Amino acid sequence: MLLIADNLHIMNPVVAKALQARNPVPLKKIAEHCTKVNAYAMDINLGPLKHNREDVITFVIEAVQDSFSGRLVLDSIQAEVIAQGIKICKQPPIINGFSLEENKLQTILPLAAEYQADIVGFLLDEQGKIPSGTEERLAVASRLVAAAEEQGVPPEKIIIDPVLVPLTWQDGTHYNRALIETIQMLNQVFGQPIRTIAGLSNIGAGAPDSTKRQTAEAAFIFMLAASHLDYILMNATQESNLTAFNLSQLLLAEKVFTWQEV
Amino acid sequence: MLLIADNLHIMNPVVAKALQARNPVPLKKIAEHCTKVNAYAMDINLGPLKHNREDVITFVIEAVQDSFSGRLVLDSIQAEVIAQGIKICKQPPIINGFSLEENKLQTILPLAAEYQADIVGFLLDEQGKIPSGTEERLAVASRLVAAAEEQGVPPEKIIIDPVLVPLTWQDGTHYNRALIETIQMLNQVFGQPIRTIAGLSNIGAGAPDSTKRQTAEAAFIFMLAASHLDYILMNATQESNLTAFNLSQLLLAEKVFTWQEV
Repeated sequence: MLLIADNLHIMNPVVAKALQARNPVPLKKIAEHCTKVNAYAMDINLGPLKHNREDVITFVIEAVQDSFSGRLVLDSIQAEVIAQGIKICKQPPIINGFSLEENKLQTILPLAAEYQADIVGFLLDEQGKIPSGTEERLAVASRLVAAAEEQGVPPEKIIIDPVLVPLTWQDGTHYNRALIETIQMLNQVFGQPIRTIAGLSNIGAGAPDSTKRQTAEAAFIFMLAASHLDYILMNATQESNLTAFNLSQLLLAEKVFTWQEV
Repeated sequence: MLLIADNLHIMNPVVAKALQARNPVPLKKIAEHCTKVNAYAMDINLGPLKHNREDVITFVIEAVQDSFSGRLVLDSIQAEVIAQGIKICKQPPIINGFSLEENKLQTILPLAAEYQADIVGFLLDEQGKIPSGTEERLAVASRLVAAAEEQGVPPEKIIIDPVLVPLTWQDGTHYNRALIETIQMLNQVFGQPIRTIAGLSNIGAGAPDSTKRQTAEAAFIFMLAASHLDYILMNATQESNLTAFNLSQLLLAEKVFTWQEV
């Protein structure tokens, strides 16, 4: 399991302020932290941009790439933002992402074909809804892979996101059980391994305090690691997340274990 | 995932002393604790008994059943101890267990057929060794199921134990990765669900302190729960184990989630 930091997000007040002031320093600081904690990639989510879209994404990526040499995940619903990002990324970017919704198939998926980029595919049905059970999810995964292949994007370029939901949703635990099962089964359903990604921050929505949220997030990190999730998108400044992430890697690593690292 | 307490074990000094003195009180106290923490079952492991085998197991089970109304797991390599235990258990017992080793097939497995009891099958090869990879493990599982069916024990009576190993074994993490994968795959390989069990205490062998051991055990509880393990055999007096166990159940439950219980 590889760590993708979700900290460079427009909902992070530090990021919003830096964007408004066109101040690269806070963005570089986030990037430096991601380097420090050995993040595999950084997700860049600036929300829907109204003006100077290409300028803004260029400003952010240039600020970040100075201090972080990993991959960038271009997380946007605006095709021109992603396209501009792809052009200036030093490492192969990951597009985040498409789904079976018509507008995504028409505007986002073609970028993966054009630039031969990795792309996240959300396990949402044609109406943008999260399927409830494992079987329906696997069926949606098949349709996602087929839709991508139709546009010239091969399965090895797809990273499926089965979408963790808030625990407090009605049937929230049922959805997340199905998500775990889906991740475990995806490699066996297709003839080849299909990579998977999950965004951790959703599950804790509505938590009454940060301790409970951290407890639930850490538990999910272990559960997702055991399910062979490929990429976990999470808050990389949260110490309890990092501790759980590093321990999960240590316990499941293909290398000699030592208690000293626990 | 259901909790089976491993505390009534001859290696537990309290148990050893109680046995020697034929004092039922400490055994009842363990049983009361298991009731308090809602354990599904108690594993009874008295080691190889030299004298009065049937008297000893009768004494223990009678002491325990006074204070614990769940199932008992009869954990012994001595067929007469298990047979006597089966006769006096108030709830359907679980025999623990058989493997492909010839003496186990000849002495322990027939008890499951005779008493139509659930039985644990260890994923060990004919020489008593733990297979290294997932494929070999699934092959051993097939042979276990076939050997049981040959003696009239159907697959629905078998609970497979893929044997967690100490993390510090050479390739220990590799073995435990394969174990997790095996648990996830067992239901799909056979035409029907095959139950699984794992004993947690092995992984921490050689830990330099109890905090590190507890940390690793808690992580494995989450990883095993996410893998759909049916029964976890663990120290039910360890608070950190119980916290992780209860949280894993809460996060994966088929019921409405509330943050209050976290």
